Amino acid sequence: MTSSELPAGFQFAGVACGIKPSGKPDLSLIVGDNRLVASGVYTQNQVVAAPVEICRSLTPSKRIRAVVTNSGNANACTGRQGELDAAEMCRSVADAISASEAEVLVMSTGIIGKKMPMDRVNAGIKNSVAKLGRDIDDFTAAADAILTTDKERKAECREVKLGDQTIRIAAMAKGAGMISPNLATMLAVVMTDAQLDPQQSQRILREVASKSFNCVSVDGHTSTNDTLLLLSSGASGIRIDDSNEKAFIRALTDLSCRLARELVADGEGATHVMKIRVVGADDDASAATIARTIGASPLVKTAISGGDPNWGRIVSAAGYADAKINPQQTSLKLAGTEIYHNGVPTDFDAAAVSKAIKATKEVDLDLFVGNGPGTAIHWASDLTVEYVRFNSEYTT
Amino acid sequence: MTSSELPAGFQFAGVACGIKPSGKPDLSLIVGDNRLVASGVYTQNQVVAAPVEICRSLTPSKRIRAVVTNSGNANACTGRQGELDAAEMCRSVADAISASEAEVLVMSTGIIGKKMPMDRVNAGIKNSVAKLGRDIDDFTAAADAILTTDKERKAECREVKLGDQTIRIAAMAKGAGMISPNLATMLAVVMTDAQLDPQQSQRILREVASKSFNCVSVDGHTSTNDTLLLLSSGASGIRIDDSNEKAFIRALTDLSCRLARELVADGEGATHVMKIRVVGADDDASAATIARTIGASPLVKTAISGGDPNWGRIVSAAGYADAKINPQQTSLKLAGTEIYHNGVPTDFDAAAVSKAIKATKEVDLDLFVGNGPGTAIHWASDLTVEYVRFNSEYTT
Repeated sequence: MTSSELPAGFQFAGVACGIKPSGKPDLSLIVGDNRLVASGVYTQNQVVAAPVEICRSLTPSKRIRAVVTNSGNANACTGRQGELDAAEMCRSVADAISASEAEVLVMSTGIIGKKMPMDRVNAGIKNSVAKLGRDIDDFTAAADAILTTDKERKAECREVKLGDQTIRIAAMAKGAGMISPNLATMLAVVMTDAQLDPQQSQRILREVASKSFNCVSVDGHTSTNDTLLLLSSGASGIRIDDSNEKAFIRALTDLSCRLARELVADGEGATHVMKIRVVGADDDASAATIARTIGASPLVKTAISGGDPNWGRIVSAAGYADAKINPQQTSLKLAGTEIYHNGVPTDFDAAAVSKAIKATKEVDLDLFVGNGPGTAIHWASDLTVEYVRFNSEYTT
Repeated sequence: MTSSELPAGFQFAGVACGIKPSGKPDLSLIVGDNRLVASGVYTQNQVVAAPVEICRSLTPSKRIRAVVTNSGNANACTGRQGELDAAEMCRSVADAISASEAEVLVMSTGIIGKKMPMDRVNAGIKNSVAKLGRDIDDFTAAADAILTTDKERKAECREVKLGDQTIRIAAMAKGAGMISPNLATMLAVVMTDAQLDPQQSQRILREVASKSFNCVSVDGHTSTNDTLLLLSSGASGIRIDDSNEKAFIRALTDLSCRLARELVADGEGATHVMKIRVVGADDDASAATIARTIGASPLVKTAISGGDPNWGRIVSAAGYADAKINPQQTSLKLAGTEIYHNGVPTDFDAAAVSKAIKATKEVDLDLFVGNGPGTAIHWASDLTVEYVRFNSEYTT
């Protein structure tokens, strides 16, 4: 990644303001040179953190100036005080960049049920505004400050050719695994210097999400704070229209998939990513339901972590998914070998398939469930002793 | 349990016929002195084992003479040969007791995708018919022969007073946990010497199941073989009608709940049973959905196994259930202490609640989600390192 690949019209900063006891970066700021078009998709959980309520009420919009994110405290299940604190974060940023409160979006991630340390947050906001910059180091600093127990930074940027024109896209994300001692969150911001209008941005973001961030799971637990934003500055002067929208969506989806898969690979205790491809379902939604059900099965997850070519667990997980399969036409390839064909296991070499699973970080599960047109891909982590150990640790 | 508490009109046997490499009992037989009224509820999985197809086609019925069950091989995903083998088991029993093939029900549990060793099965059937008896030891032998990796026998019998009359009920069950190397099954047979007609039996069984065996989960994986049967001999001469049906259902439900909870307590690696009670949902079905979702959350399960009073995981699991909750009216008692009240955590003594969780085998989770009339109870096991270790073991 280089500074020249970053979308024009954005500045970035990331600082440590003392929300995290570790002293790691915990305050991240993205500011537009001018007003940004912004859209968002949010957690489906009915228990919703205060920052999500603010973002929901403000997007889609063509007048967003900034996004402030803190890590270390989710500001969830914090009642009326939490709402006031989230609004204060927006106002604090707005004051510092001469904008209005309703032009600032806010995201939070970390421990839930704890009051926000607003003195530190406000000091962090002032500090981050002073540090805003356009270099790749500023971008990565902003990306680092949204992480919680993630082991790796998740950030990407690149130039994209749309015909003979060039735009830039970038994205940062954090942890899909639910995290001790309470729970964490998927946060992601996708940015571009292409020109979009708000409704178009919202529509494109939904489509991109449905093929990237909505296709991954670690433990199936939907957080109170999940937020995905799309920000466009228009600074490239290149308008997205019928002529280039398909290519634009493909580039955004590709970038988002990369980050989404990194989220799974970095899932708590994960040793494998399962790439679950379902073919032949009644429709794409049915295929996605089947793939997601397989990815959520503890028995499938443990089999993969143990290198066990256990077709029975995979096929029966598909069988209890809330979508139709044809058992007599169900076949399964695992790590490239067909181990189940039209309703019965094949005479496969179990030791060889086990070896193939153990030898790879990303394991292919290709399931054929009938003759329908529906297909889907889902990425899920496996389930290890380390996941359980990590999530049952409690030291009272 | 004593022989006099067993329902009249039934004989039992359990033998080892060599399906299990361990040499443990693996062939179980229940025979009626006369024709039995029988009803059944079966797996919701779309991948269905051959024995389940036979039972489904034959129940409800008033002419069942016997139920034969083998453990060690599930006869699932075995194609046409599996159908022939299941039918042969029925015919083999029918020949030995002078009945017809369509008067015999069959259940199987164990490894899937392997051909049944029919020579051994047929020899076992002959041997078990020769050993049929009415003593409590015969009953427990039959109950032992349906077990797979269960650590404990699950069998109960008792006398029930209906007004001034006495009937008897008995039940046997096996393992709810999905079991290495493939998957296992919940099998249960409930028996009585009361008189029922077939449609009444079916209706009563559905009601009993919905409040007992359908209210438990270990890992949420629905097997290909799950079967619950209700057999009535009528040998007590006491007819179940409007005057005594409610009391009869209550007694059956109570007995079934005892066995269902034993299934959870004996779940693979389980150290706690979570008794999840949801109150205030829109209706009972919504409450059941919320309770089941909490019980299936790996994060809730790991928190309980670690003695962590983690209200965030429990409340957010309720929040992503496919049923409405009112977040501002959501409150939670854990192990008797209110730790979350109307949308925010209380100032509870975390160390004391943690100690209370660790001190008990059955942990109460009482969740209030609004002002609706819906309530439900669900029992689920916790998730431990031992579960993952057991299910990811594979020694190719």
